[in-house]
Amino acid sequence: MNVEKMSPSEARALIRSNDWTRPTAGMASGFTQANLAILKKDLAFEFLLFCQRNPKPCPILDVTEPGSPVPRLVAPTADLRTDIPKYRIYEHGELTNEVDNITKYWNDDMVAFLIGCSFTFEQPLMNNGIPIRHIEENCNVPMYKTNIQTVKAGRFEGPMVVSMRPVAHRDVVRAVQVTSRFPSVHGAPVHIGDPSVIGINDVSKPDFGDSVSIRDNEVPVFWACGVTPQAIAMHVKPDIMITHAPGHMFITDKRDEDYSIL
Amino acid sequence: MNVEKMSPSEARALIRSNDWTRPTAGMASGFTQANLAILKKDLAFEFLLFCQRNPKPCPILDVTEPGSPVPRLVAPTADLRTDIPKYRIYEHGELTNEVDNITKYWNDDMVAFLIGCSFTFEQPLMNNGIPIRHIEENCNVPMYKTNIQTVKAGRFEGPMVVSMRPVAHRDVVRAVQVTSRFPSVHGAPVHIGDPSVIGINDVSKPDFGDSVSIRDNEVPVFWACGVTPQAIAMHVKPDIMITHAPGHMFITDKRDEDYSIL
Repeated sequence: MNVEKMSPSEARALIRSNDWTRPTAGMASGFTQANLAILKKDLAFEFLLFCQRNPKPCPILDVTEPGSPVPRLVAPTADLRTDIPKYRIYEHGELTNEVDNITKYWNDDMVAFLIGCSFTFEQPLMNNGIPIRHIEENCNVPMYKTNIQTVKAGRFEGPMVVSMRPVAHRDVVRAVQVTSRFPSVHGAPVHIGDPSVIGINDVSKPDFGDSVSIRDNEVPVFWACGVTPQAIAMHVKPDIMITHAPGHMFITDKRDEDYSIL
Repeated sequence: MNVEKMSPSEARALIRSNDWTRPTAGMASGFTQANLAILKKDLAFEFLLFCQRNPKPCPILDVTEPGSPVPRLVAPTADLRTDIPKYRIYEHGELTNEVDNITKYWNDDMVAFLIGCSFTFEQPLMNNGIPIRHIEENCNVPMYKTNIQTVKAGRFEGPMVVSMRPVAHRDVVRAVQVTSRFPSVHGAPVHIGDPSVIGINDVSKPDFGDSVSIRDNEVPVFWACGVTPQAIAMHVKPDIMITHAPGHMFITDKRDEDYSIL
């Protein structure tokens, strides 16, 4: 089974039938994968406003109509209740369950948000000869809470979470250029170099994900991370919030290059 | 009185005291001006979603908290009830009044949207030696309804409105590059050349604004226009909708370059 060469709809069918329950990295190569956050309608305007005010950490790819599980913009034949391999259920801010479909949790009050993910800019970095350390080391990208405040919207507020990729000095300028082309999937870095400037005391101890090695000829480069909106929504302790499980993303029909502005 | 050199807050104070009731072109030069649309809260989520789905015609610069007339992101000391020289009041889709402040119309149910305006990319075009015909001819930019459908959100749907600027053949590529740098104020063109391709039958008869001359060595270049969201909101015939009067924009504290991604 060559999941890399599958079309997005083939990959989603496999996931929907529970024949694929693992992380989605590498599936339907070249097509954009997205983070999921589902909230009740009464929080949806504030959350959408929060994302609109903080486009770097919260780049929205699609928002469903209230009650509809269909992301019409990015995958009109998909069903967000079944097409992700693993979901997490949070009640009052606490993780209460991990499930392979959310049919029994879904109701007409719900709005689903699909948020851009850094997978989309990692391939263009690699195409430019810039290796991605956490892929080389076969682990999760390291993520950190920072002292960079997001812009508040209603009840949503808190610090930005960033992801870090070590980049060789000779490649730093190119890494800025390449990721600047993708403003709707985090875009240009938010910081280059000394981690303490953005409130990170020990770069070897990420708050989420795994530590990766930084070599002598490299600097740590930090991008706004799609974990931010989930972390911030959690502070609000909504009655219910549903997300994808880390690494188990939603596969859209959009090509990565659709999100490049140049 | 040199309004060009004023700071944004000085310009807004002049407008607030009714000492300036004319169009805002050229005021507080270098600072971003914005379109205004005010709707009641019950339409706000759908309208925000519509704008999020149609970022080229509807690039949002700020959205106020429901009931607050303060655009905290782009001008935290401003008051949207008084700081625009001329407003239009629409009731059930009909223009019913034109006023110099909206204090008596404002209530705690209202949400104000500030939407990017092409003024922001015209200066960079001119800085690159690309003249702007409607400025040369001292008239309004020509605007056209097209056959390009926007992406529906709830009750909001309809065709995209575009603005047109004639560009010399030798400058077309540069015009694409320069405006691509500004994705949050309409960004790159939506069409270059033959107007009939996007459903415009007679380029000399714009649906809004004024006709401008197109010379032999020039092609018409079309950008998504900020009139789109107003035109589409009007179809919904909301109880009340308030906008700026054409050319009478809101002056933000942001510099045009703040909206450039490169």
